[in-house]
Amino acid sequence: MKIKVVKDILGANEQIAEKNRKLLDSNKVFAVNLMSSPGAGKTSLILQTIKKLQGKVRVGVIEGDVSSSVDAEAVGKEGVPVVQINTDGGCHLDANMIGDALDKLPLGDIGLLFVENVGNLICPAGFALGAHKKVVISSIPEGHDKPLKYPLMFHVADVVLVNKIDLAPYLNFDNEAFSQTLKGMNKEAKIFPISCTTGEGIEQWASWLLAQMDRR
Amino acid sequence: MKIKVVKDILGANEQIAEKNRKLLDSNKVFAVNLMSSPGAGKTSLILQTIKKLQGKVRVGVIEGDVSSSVDAEAVGKEGVPVVQINTDGGCHLDANMIGDALDKLPLGDIGLLFVENVGNLICPAGFALGAHKKVVISSIPEGHDKPLKYPLMFHVADVVLVNKIDLAPYLNFDNEAFSQTLKGMNKEAKIFPISCTTGEGIEQWASWLLAQMDRR
Repeated sequence: MKIKVVKDILGANEQIAEKNRKLLDSNKVFAVNLMSSPGAGKTSLILQTIKKLQGKVRVGVIEGDVSSSVDAEAVGKEGVPVVQINTDGGCHLDANMIGDALDKLPLGDIGLLFVENVGNLICPAGFALGAHKKVVISSIPEGHDKPLKYPLMFHVADVVLVNKIDLAPYLNFDNEAFSQTLKGMNKEAKIFPISCTTGEGIEQWASWLLAQMDRR
Repeated sequence: MKIKVVKDILGANEQIAEKNRKLLDSNKVFAVNLMSSPGAGKTSLILQTIKKLQGKVRVGVIEGDVSSSVDAEAVGKEGVPVVQINTDGGCHLDANMIGDALDKLPLGDIGLLFVENVGNLICPAGFALGAHKKVVISSIPEGHDKPLKYPLMFHVADVVLVNKIDLAPYLNFDNEAFSQTLKGMNKEAKIFPISCTTGEGIEQWASWLLAQMDRR
């Protein structure tokens, strides 16, 4: 009985996600669902990517948070359109929230939309939003065992950004163990080592993003 | 209607948590509900605390994870009794899971029980387990804005351990901003800066724990 209810909720979410996808496609907007632990660097990545793509593609952002609007304020300073969603205790965004936010964005003026999900490696993995790619940030201070411990998140990822590599000299992060575990559960996922502090790897990530957009 | 169901679940959980508390008290076991983001250092803290309290108090551990048993294996090597709970996708432990785990632990031989909750700054905050204290680890690579963004977790905390302070020279963590935000929402919370890598601050934390146990 309980499973039935959960299935219904996920089914309804899936339908709204498809509607979102159609709206995005009809406006030629490429959307990325960005997920990670709290503090892994989602907002920093968005800021770095906006700078790197300046003059190439116009970016919009949906900021998802349990509470506060600090991330939306930081992104807004870059002069891009941003909508804040506060889940008020909810541990993930859902397709309905995204549908509402899309109505508030100037979709005709945007080529790339970042959806910053709630900081959480569990709940967001199960809810489609209508985005074209699921991108997971795993920061090296969190340790190399994260794919093993949060398998669904790493299983659904199209891209895994390994962030904060500037801290590698001060940590015992086993890059090989991380990649092996990830590949064991998800052969297709692209891996980009990056640092949002030094900018390392952002060029490669941004080029991949542009290639995805060109391909459509 | 939806709110009613959620309230019933929380009410039922609360009742089982009280039962757990009584069982712990009748066995003179002091229990800590340990919560944090993924990779903030819960297992490392447990390992450091076990070493520091050797010969002073016997420790038992309940390990909560979405998947895998790597943490339970690491803790088991220290020769302490440990029970693994896999939530199979669930984003938090609940009192019922703890009740089952308590049945499997030699409670008469233990003075201190660590319950390592699922790595998540949202869901675990709402579910009582029957533990005596709620301890939240916030690691400095996550940034100083975490209390602002995950208010319930920091609101319910009895203690906040600020971990990975050995990385301070390489990060822009604003200690003052963190403490001010935390105090604004939770005047009572004790703050201990620690490093599970260098051992800094573990003595103070362990002394506080022992004092709590003596007071009972």
